[in-house]
Amino acid sequence: MEVKAGELLEQINYPSDLKKFSESDLERICQELRQYIIDVVSVNGGHFAASLGVVELTVALHYVLNTPYDQLVWDVGHQAYGHKILTGRRSVFHTNRMHNGISGFPKRAESEYDTFGVGHSSTSISAALGMAVASQYKGEKDRQHVAVIGDGSMTAGMAFEALNHAGIENTNLLVILNDNCMSIDPNVGALKEYLTDITISRPYNKFRDDISNVLGKLSELGPNAHQMVKMIEKSIKGTLLKRSNFFEALKFRYFGPIDGHDVKHLAKVIKELRSIPGPKLLHCVTVKGKGFSLAEKDQTKWHAPGLFDKITGEIKKSVSDKPQPPKYQDVFGHTLVELAEANPNIMGITPAMPSGSSMNIMMKAMPDRAFDVGIAEQHAVTFSAGLATQGMVPFCNIYSSFMQRAYDQVIHDVAIQKLNVVFCLDRAGLAGADGATHHGAYDLAFMRCIPNMVVSAPMNEEELRNLMYTAQQENMGPFAIRYPRGTGVMADWKRPFKAIPVGKGRKISDGEEVAILTIGHIGNEAVKACHELSSLGIHPAHFDMRFVKPIDEDLLHDIFANFSKLVIVEDGCLQGGLGSAVLEFMSDNLYSATVIRLGIPDEFIEHGEQPELWAECGYDAGAIIKAVEKMAVIRTTKSLAS
Amino acid sequence: MEVKAGELLEQINYPSDLKKFSESDLERICQELRQYIIDVVSVNGGHFAASLGVVELTVALHYVLNTPYDQLVWDVGHQAYGHKILTGRRSVFHTNRMHNGISGFPKRAESEYDTFGVGHSSTSISAALGMAVASQYKGEKDRQHVAVIGDGSMTAGMAFEALNHAGIENTNLLVILNDNCMSIDPNVGALKEYLTDITISRPYNKFRDDISNVLGKLSELGPNAHQMVKMIEKSIKGTLLKRSNFFEALKFRYFGPIDGHDVKHLAKVIKELRSIPGPKLLHCVTVKGKGFSLAEKDQTKWHAPGLFDKITGEIKKSVSDKPQPPKYQDVFGHTLVELAEANPNIMGITPAMPSGSSMNIMMKAMPDRAFDVGIAEQHAVTFSAGLATQGMVPFCNIYSSFMQRAYDQVIHDVAIQKLNVVFCLDRAGLAGADGATHHGAYDLAFMRCIPNMVVSAPMNEEELRNLMYTAQQENMGPFAIRYPRGTGVMADWKRPFKAIPVGKGRKISDGEEVAILTIGHIGNEAVKACHELSSLGIHPAHFDMRFVKPIDEDLLHDIFANFSKLVIVEDGCLQGGLGSAVLEFMSDNLYSATVIRLGIPDEFIEHGEQPELWAECGYDAGAIIKAVEKMAVIRTTKSLAS
Repeated sequence: MEVKAGELLEQINYPSDLKKFSESDLERICQELRQYIIDVVSVNGGHFAASLGVVELTVALHYVLNTPYDQLVWDVGHQAYGHKILTGRRSVFHTNRMHNGISGFPKRAESEYDTFGVGHSSTSISAALGMAVASQYKGEKDRQHVAVIGDGSMTAGMAFEALNHAGIENTNLLVILNDNCMSIDPNVGALKEYLTDITISRPYNKFRDDISNVLGKLSELGPNAHQMVKMIEKSIKGTLLKRSNFFEALKFRYFGPIDGHDVKHLAKVIKELRSIPGPKLLHCVTVKGKGFSLAEKDQTKWHAPGLFDKITGEIKKSVSDKPQPPKYQDVFGHTLVELAEANPNIMGITPAMPSGSSMNIMMKAMPDRAFDVGIAEQHAVTFSAGLATQGMVPFCNIYSSFMQRAYDQVIHDVAIQKLNVVFCLDRAGLAGADGATHHGAYDLAFMRCIPNMVVSAPMNEEELRNLMYTAQQENMGPFAIRYPRGTGVMADWKRPFKAIPVGKGRKISDGEEVAILTIGHIGNEAVKACHELSSLGIHPAHFDMRFVKPIDEDLLHDIFANFSKLVIVEDGCLQGGLGSAVLEFMSDNLYSATVIRLGIPDEFIEHGEQPELWAECGYDAGAIIKAVEKMAVIRTTKSLAS
Repeated sequence: MEVKAGELLEQINYPSDLKKFSESDLERICQELRQYIIDVVSVNGGHFAASLGVVELTVALHYVLNTPYDQLVWDVGHQAYGHKILTGRRSVFHTNRMHNGISGFPKRAESEYDTFGVGHSSTSISAALGMAVASQYKGEKDRQHVAVIGDGSMTAGMAFEALNHAGIENTNLLVILNDNCMSIDPNVGALKEYLTDITISRPYNKFRDDISNVLGKLSELGPNAHQMVKMIEKSIKGTLLKRSNFFEALKFRYFGPIDGHDVKHLAKVIKELRSIPGPKLLHCVTVKGKGFSLAEKDQTKWHAPGLFDKITGEIKKSVSDKPQPPKYQDVFGHTLVELAEANPNIMGITPAMPSGSSMNIMMKAMPDRAFDVGIAEQHAVTFSAGLATQGMVPFCNIYSSFMQRAYDQVIHDVAIQKLNVVFCLDRAGLAGADGATHHGAYDLAFMRCIPNMVVSAPMNEEELRNLMYTAQQENMGPFAIRYPRGTGVMADWKRPFKAIPVGKGRKISDGEEVAILTIGHIGNEAVKACHELSSLGIHPAHFDMRFVKPIDEDLLHDIFANFSKLVIVEDGCLQGGLGSAVLEFMSDNLYSATVIRLGIPDEFIEHGEQPELWAECGYDAGAIIKAVEKMAVIRTTKSLAS
């Protein structure tokens, strides 16, 4: 649904249009831009509060900088809606995050103003430094490189790695710290407290000047005083003031904190900073959700609220008479507390996703046993490993695509030492509207090659509960459970726990000629397919493998003894996943069969609703039906193999 | 070879023995421990300079702490030889890093004093914090948790993530910063310069006291002065002093810098720190290689010098009349400079491995185009991505097992955006004496599932050169080249460049009945095997696949048309690697064949010489011969498949 923009905003298609306005118009432009975001997101959905928080910063940056020649990298990109609207995408902004619409994140293929594709946190300083070093090498002395990064993103190690390197490269790099005390949930950690400290203290630079002034006056009190003051000044200048700020310790020039909602002042400061060479950091204090009072008050809820009434603030929910299946994440959250009540060794760990993973349920119920460690997947995993050495059973919940951040720690700190850490990989498989950066496409492949690792996926809520119950038993070793974004299939899900034998699948339905092997929630598409096929007189068998590692060898021997036609379905990449595991078994055991593998093809899949994407990738119920029918066509041939 | 220990040291088998000595004996014990390390390492090899640097720290820690109840985590573990000698392993220390001998790193299976297995950098604070949180939960109030971490390791993001979390947990955690200005090569980055700054300034704590004293005196100069001083004091205490140190900004109490070679003072300070609750950091300044003057002077060379004469310091080299093949890393290093001379867009990036990767050759030849970014694999990859957006062609050289640290960045920042970053993965396959943590076992599997990625491996020096030449051509996209530790096979390796068609393998030798498919250097074992087999009248064909992705489909069609028996050999894990790729192709194209896959089995492989390990894992020439012979036995059967 297209929405009308305000009078000034509708004149702005590109930053060049913005630059035509006078400074005195900037506030009104901000107002109109903010309203436009509210108008569109309320009816189309998407990330909300982050973009409202940087309206003034966005306008100031494009007003002052010479984008796209000057290069602007938005960290994560949740906050880049204003940027998109001001850089050629106002008229298509209503297609945001929709299948075949524009991406919810900056994306190079979409616009030359999107200098770097983002989605995962804390990449912006590294990327902008790369650009800045290239500019330096090419002699582009006038070119500016700006990374806009939140205080939440600053907790991730790679942001620190980038600061540590950038501090010694003398490039035109400006890091803008968008300090709103939030990730999706409230930001945590020592750095956040430090930033709060220096924000509520008098502005740092002013304070520095004051000290100088007072010392100057003191030194006028006599020769004795003069000497002592000189000594203090020398010491302060040599040690304290030179590197007394966290960022100055890393050799950045630090400016701020300043009000991130004063657009004129922002424009002035950014203009001034352009002429200062070398690495510099501008500390802006902003309010996430600024200008929409409900969002200001409950920033987590309004991070990505779905559709809502922009007047009343009522968030729209689908209404149904029947009890609905829960989200997998909530099954995880409630089940974890249930298990932890019975097993005092269980701990919960989330890297900055309390609400997204539903770890907040345990954090509320057992605050001394559940930890939000910040955007810090690497630390989350090794911290869990440390806990496990002491007999704890940590449930470390990390989105599948974010687990890519901690791959070494899974291998090096958990698997080699065979520690009992339970990895719950939420958002596994195609994750929907967030697109390529957020699909959990590779976990089955990258976890399956790790020795000592159990890799499992539940087909429904009850299986998730039982896998979690199984994983927390003694001496289980590293145990991964992956499940998708969204809801399951069982309204009545809270059933008594039953241990699942590790590495054992199960038969869902008997059948003949063709065997369908699935893993995880996508198995429900196979159930639908079987149902439809049976009305056509085709009766494939269906097996829920549950584990890709260890794979159920007894079941596979059975299957290969009885079927020479297999359809294997997984909500994961075709390279190295369940299908490959079955082919390895087949080859190692000298079986032969015709196998159709359905899963994510060897390309990056864009955003869309999950069912749209399953269909696009060819592994929804319809595609499974086609595959089985294809097999049926060749029913007279013994095998297609040459 | 066992070596005799000094008089005091030989009485010490465990820390309990050490504690029986008086403080006045500690210096001599340090002397003997240092000498013992020199004596053993000079004749047995291993890491050298790091352990010499922490002799005093090691003795002081075990003297004061109640290990193993108190928990000590050594970061990386290169420096833990003294720790091993003092904790039950003096008599087996001469088996260090040998096949079936003790590990070169702390390892939980080896000793209860090794609280956490290490090898990769920067895990210690996370692990120790996990232990400390578990202790707190269990109510073990008297238990100490100590992480010993170098300033080099402190540059990695995960160390920062851990500090950021530890700062807000009120546990008994002591981080000892072993500041020697070194990784394996000299440490780099802004933090290192900061540490140097605060070390050469007056000791920080003393300085803080001094300021207070002087302000006190100033305030006595009259009511006016008194008021101004009060104001300064308040400001300084509120802002500057409270968080004026980098670590104090992260809510650690900071102590130091102190001399890390004064064992008595170290013991005293560590004893005092035990009684201070909460997170604290002790900054120790040490000299890597301390006590062996040549090592002090050239710390990189003496990081792990091999065998040497402990009197003259002469490093022993194998002598040969014939020209020897070079190390793969040196072929990389020299070739990169050659290519960069012709292509001005090429840049070189190493995360703290200039000498290990031979990137130091380019750093010396072209200092403005080659970057050591510190132990920061994540940043290294995304920094490369940033460079690539500007048309640069970054060669980002990362050891295969360290690449696990940057897996997300490879997917999210390079592959999704299809940027032309060349990943050179050194130490791929079984890496030798460093053991399980350092084997590059998984790269073929975890890189192969990434869309847009080219994954290749050269069989020899010439192929490495040509793959590098190929990779830097325009619009190649993400391109991985993996090669092993150690030497190649061509003494005469510097041949003119020839582009290799992407995704094309080659035939090494014609043959019949059995086809051997290999990738990378291990192909040379197949060459040996073919040679021996031909004397038995068996003539398998041999194909060097060169690319696991894209895989050479034309060649595979040919092979399957002509062979029904395949032996596939890779120096990588059997799950998801080349073998699986071939099975996927076979199944997708309805071929059938008997396939034996040789590679790293599904377990963590310990340390040993590469040929020992290849034999152990069953993919050296001998194992290939056996596999081909096994195939020959079934020559009368059309296929073993049922």
